[in-house]
Amino acid sequence: MAEPVPGTSPPVCLLLAPARCLPIQVKAMDKADIRKFREAHMAAVKRAALAGYDIIYVYASHDISILNHFLSASINRRNDEYGGSFDNRLRLLREVLQDTLETVGGSRAVAIRFSVAEPGRSRGLTHDGEGRDVVEALAELPDLWDVNISGWSSDSASARFSDEGFQLAYTDFVKPLTSKPVVGVGRFTSPEFMASLVRNGRLDLIGAARPSIADPFLPNKIRDGRIEELRECIGCNICVGMDSYGVPVRCTQNPTISEEWRSGWHPEAPAQSRGRKSHLVIGSGPAGLECATTLLRADQKVTVAESLNRAGGRASRESGLAGLATWARIRDHRTQQLLRSTDAELYLSSCMTAEDIVDFGADSVTIATGSVWRRDGVGSTNFDPINFGSKQVLTPDDIMDGSILADDQSRCIVYDDDHFYMASVVAEHLARSGSRVVLATPLPEIATWTGHTLEQTKIIERLSVLGVQLKPNLRIVDGPGFLCNLSGRKEALDAECVVFVGARRPVDGLHRQLLNKDGIGEIHIAGDCLAPGNIQAAVLSGHRTARSILGEFGKGSEFRREQMRCC
Amino acid sequence: MAEPVPGTSPPVCLLLAPARCLPIQVKAMDKADIRKFREAHMAAVKRAALAGYDIIYVYASHDISILNHFLSASINRRNDEYGGSFDNRLRLLREVLQDTLETVGGSRAVAIRFSVAEPGRSRGLTHDGEGRDVVEALAELPDLWDVNISGWSSDSASARFSDEGFQLAYTDFVKPLTSKPVVGVGRFTSPEFMASLVRNGRLDLIGAARPSIADPFLPNKIRDGRIEELRECIGCNICVGMDSYGVPVRCTQNPTISEEWRSGWHPEAPAQSRGRKSHLVIGSGPAGLECATTLLRADQKVTVAESLNRAGGRASRESGLAGLATWARIRDHRTQQLLRSTDAELYLSSCMTAEDIVDFGADSVTIATGSVWRRDGVGSTNFDPINFGSKQVLTPDDIMDGSILADDQSRCIVYDDDHFYMASVVAEHLARSGSRVVLATPLPEIATWTGHTLEQTKIIERLSVLGVQLKPNLRIVDGPGFLCNLSGRKEALDAECVVFVGARRPVDGLHRQLLNKDGIGEIHIAGDCLAPGNIQAAVLSGHRTARSILGEFGKGSEFRREQMRCC
Repeated sequence: MAEPVPGTSPPVCLLLAPARCLPIQVKAMDKADIRKFREAHMAAVKRAALAGYDIIYVYASHDISILNHFLSASINRRNDEYGGSFDNRLRLLREVLQDTLETVGGSRAVAIRFSVAEPGRSRGLTHDGEGRDVVEALAELPDLWDVNISGWSSDSASARFSDEGFQLAYTDFVKPLTSKPVVGVGRFTSPEFMASLVRNGRLDLIGAARPSIADPFLPNKIRDGRIEELRECIGCNICVGMDSYGVPVRCTQNPTISEEWRSGWHPEAPAQSRGRKSHLVIGSGPAGLECATTLLRADQKVTVAESLNRAGGRASRESGLAGLATWARIRDHRTQQLLRSTDAELYLSSCMTAEDIVDFGADSVTIATGSVWRRDGVGSTNFDPINFGSKQVLTPDDIMDGSILADDQSRCIVYDDDHFYMASVVAEHLARSGSRVVLATPLPEIATWTGHTLEQTKIIERLSVLGVQLKPNLRIVDGPGFLCNLSGRKEALDAECVVFVGARRPVDGLHRQLLNKDGIGEIHIAGDCLAPGNIQAAVLSGHRTARSILGEFGKGSEFRREQMRCC
Repeated sequence: MAEPVPGTSPPVCLLLAPARCLPIQVKAMDKADIRKFREAHMAAVKRAALAGYDIIYVYASHDISILNHFLSASINRRNDEYGGSFDNRLRLLREVLQDTLETVGGSRAVAIRFSVAEPGRSRGLTHDGEGRDVVEALAELPDLWDVNISGWSSDSASARFSDEGFQLAYTDFVKPLTSKPVVGVGRFTSPEFMASLVRNGRLDLIGAARPSIADPFLPNKIRDGRIEELRECIGCNICVGMDSYGVPVRCTQNPTISEEWRSGWHPEAPAQSRGRKSHLVIGSGPAGLECATTLLRADQKVTVAESLNRAGGRASRESGLAGLATWARIRDHRTQQLLRSTDAELYLSSCMTAEDIVDFGADSVTIATGSVWRRDGVGSTNFDPINFGSKQVLTPDDIMDGSILADDQSRCIVYDDDHFYMASVVAEHLARSGSRVVLATPLPEIATWTGHTLEQTKIIERLSVLGVQLKPNLRIVDGPGFLCNLSGRKEALDAECVVFVGARRPVDGLHRQLLNKDGIGEIHIAGDCLAPGNIQAAVLSGHRTARSILGEFGKGSEFRREQMRCC
């Protein structure tokens, strides 16, 4: 087999999710390209200095930079002085780091962002191998070490697949090798843990992007000792998921993110309403609690009525499933705000009828009664009910309610026509409970949308380890049976029980009753009972509803826009 | 099974490629929503009139408008006066059409864009059923009927899966039912065919978006009788594919598309060079031919040397494969331009060495020698050679060269680590030649990137019909064997022959030799020998190279940018 030579292109698609790649290979850089690259980097450094930045980064991380590609034997196939040996692969990073230091000449700090390990990559860097060698070789050269692991799905792991501080096992070796400050990341969400790391000398600075999206006042609240006001990141990676769409970032915990400028939404201080009024919120799920706490911040009187004996709605229910414990933070942060205020009441086990609501006499009523999972076969690729014959058909609601399968040891089909996390969570739950589980879906991918939250590969690995059989491309049909989307052939549905994970039905009966009632002023509807979605959408809906009650929406365009001009 | 009721959300994901959908359901519109929708539509109509548009569209097409969704029984599940019967489902379209007519009051023409059929949709409109009923019901109401079929993949079918005028079978019924002009679409690319449709009264106006991207002067050239200058659309759907990326549209035939303003590229008139020079282009593939014709348009002297006995490079080679015959137009349009000029020479069977090129003494030399498919197992998800043991390993080049499998009736594995069209084309070719074919790929989807060109579902259908077995999620490993990405289990590679469709190797040896030669002024490299990609990328590369030779690139930014400002 001929060795690749310089000038021979390595394929590029690995660098992006394959479905999104253009079918175009890269060109291997020749010496002139490398020279141009270094010059361009120096020009960028000068612009950054001119723009007033205090710290300028050299970036060798996340599978997304040339410096990282040259360094890692998993990608670099050169056989000139920039490939082969460790020193050769390190050459470009060292040159660019020196270029940068010389360009700023001490006027700016120069940081290096470096992935010390590339888990799961064949011949990738490891923290006890070449990753460590890089830090040893460049130890005192940069002014700051910013260390993590690659690629992005390893680095920005969700709460379902990583614990707080999970990257320390990889990066703990860095501090002893350098006198320069070290910043680390890895789902640091609690102030206590962050502080302990700095106190114990394991890190000098805490990197926490997602937690700062969840609560932009994170450092201030720690400084001011307002820990109980902190809105802690739940690690759901909806923020990451929005990256695929080229749309404003969203956050389950922080509905104001991306709306600060264009909607004028302060993360914690909604505009004051013209007067102090009383508001009734029916339902204490994510939408209801967010609506209530936002009204409370605007100095309103709020009552939340929950029909069940615990608050939180689906945030509570889902937090009982494998890997979703952090979902409870959505509830806890908000119920704590309500409990701390004398202007808020939260009543559990309080099922209110339309008449009760009229009698209550609040100035506004918000219905946030959630949704239920459909049992009839209607999902995102099928709009018509399925005849399941004599099979036992369960839904995620049944699983969360603790329903037992007909026979615990029986074979069970989890059929996913929802395509986000729920089916895989249910499959994991059932497999851990001892069932023999098949996860089938009509789409080609398992848990398609979890690709956006960087969880898909990990879900497949985890379910495989648990013995769950994964069957994509199978469409459920009347009988029931399966039809293979690739072969067109029928396949038996060989199980006594089907857990159907498809569309949801809004619980909007109370809202419709109220619309026909006299004697109520404002009626609003928010969250899943308006349009079932992910929890982030429910929180945003609750927040918008509160802003609407506070009179923040005018008649014109709902948010400011940027306009294009030529230059 | 309970019937869905108004206010109950149908799921939404069907409306977009599922992998791109947000996991959020829509809300069923209530009467207030419908009223707001009609008001918003009227406000938009007023703005369009104010902006000076002569024709204002009412859009009920392509699975992407509320009017289409209300109309089609495949989606509409309402049980109020907007759902159920045909008249009820037609109600909103009729109302909005009337709103629009009343709003413009005769001052503007009102067109309706309507899909008369929704092939492949359960309970969808059909051209001899409710599609026809809609035209009968609204026949004289709009000023123009713009008719097609839905969804987008049915409408914008590629050349591989549709013939010119393929939609006429669906839309021919419209003209006899209305006195208003009718515009139709359906891959109309040749002027003769377009003219015959108008002459024969089958259509009044020709809709041709893709052909106008391929040649923006299409109407002018027909008017002026310059048919031989027409650059005919090849129906490859690269234009459509760019839609997924949110980037400027691209076109295989027209490299200037999207660059008219930002790069100042006129589609046919490159800036004149400072002087008349002679240019040598090595290779007559898409990049070489585009480079040569662009230089020719700038009044330069051009010589193209092709080592083979026919021009066109991969455009010729691939055009011999099933479904790709239109690829030859890339070659034909350009060779015709060269042949018509006394300033151009095209030499076939002319293999030039570095010495020959020096001796030729052109002012510039452009190397466009293409690429070859790799045989060693390196592809977009695997950077290391595979040990194929004693298996016969072929590449797409072998298939295009007419290589015969070891045994024509033998089982053959086409392994796709390229993920665009080639593997599926090769599989189709082999299946039609009588081989028993398995198409395997490490990705979850078959021919992933063809999802962007709207061909993926059709590829799967066609290969299934041809008996090709489709096996996603299989990674080829040394031996060779397969490893299943879902189960982690090994699987036998049960075939004597593997057609490996992976990365390509640039044929850049001549270019590297020339870089070390004295006596040559300008040396350029373009197309697949620079960086293997799709044909569109090669044509663009050839065009850029010609512009570069003509001195069009300055030192500053390479194209104009739009800047944001607040409003």
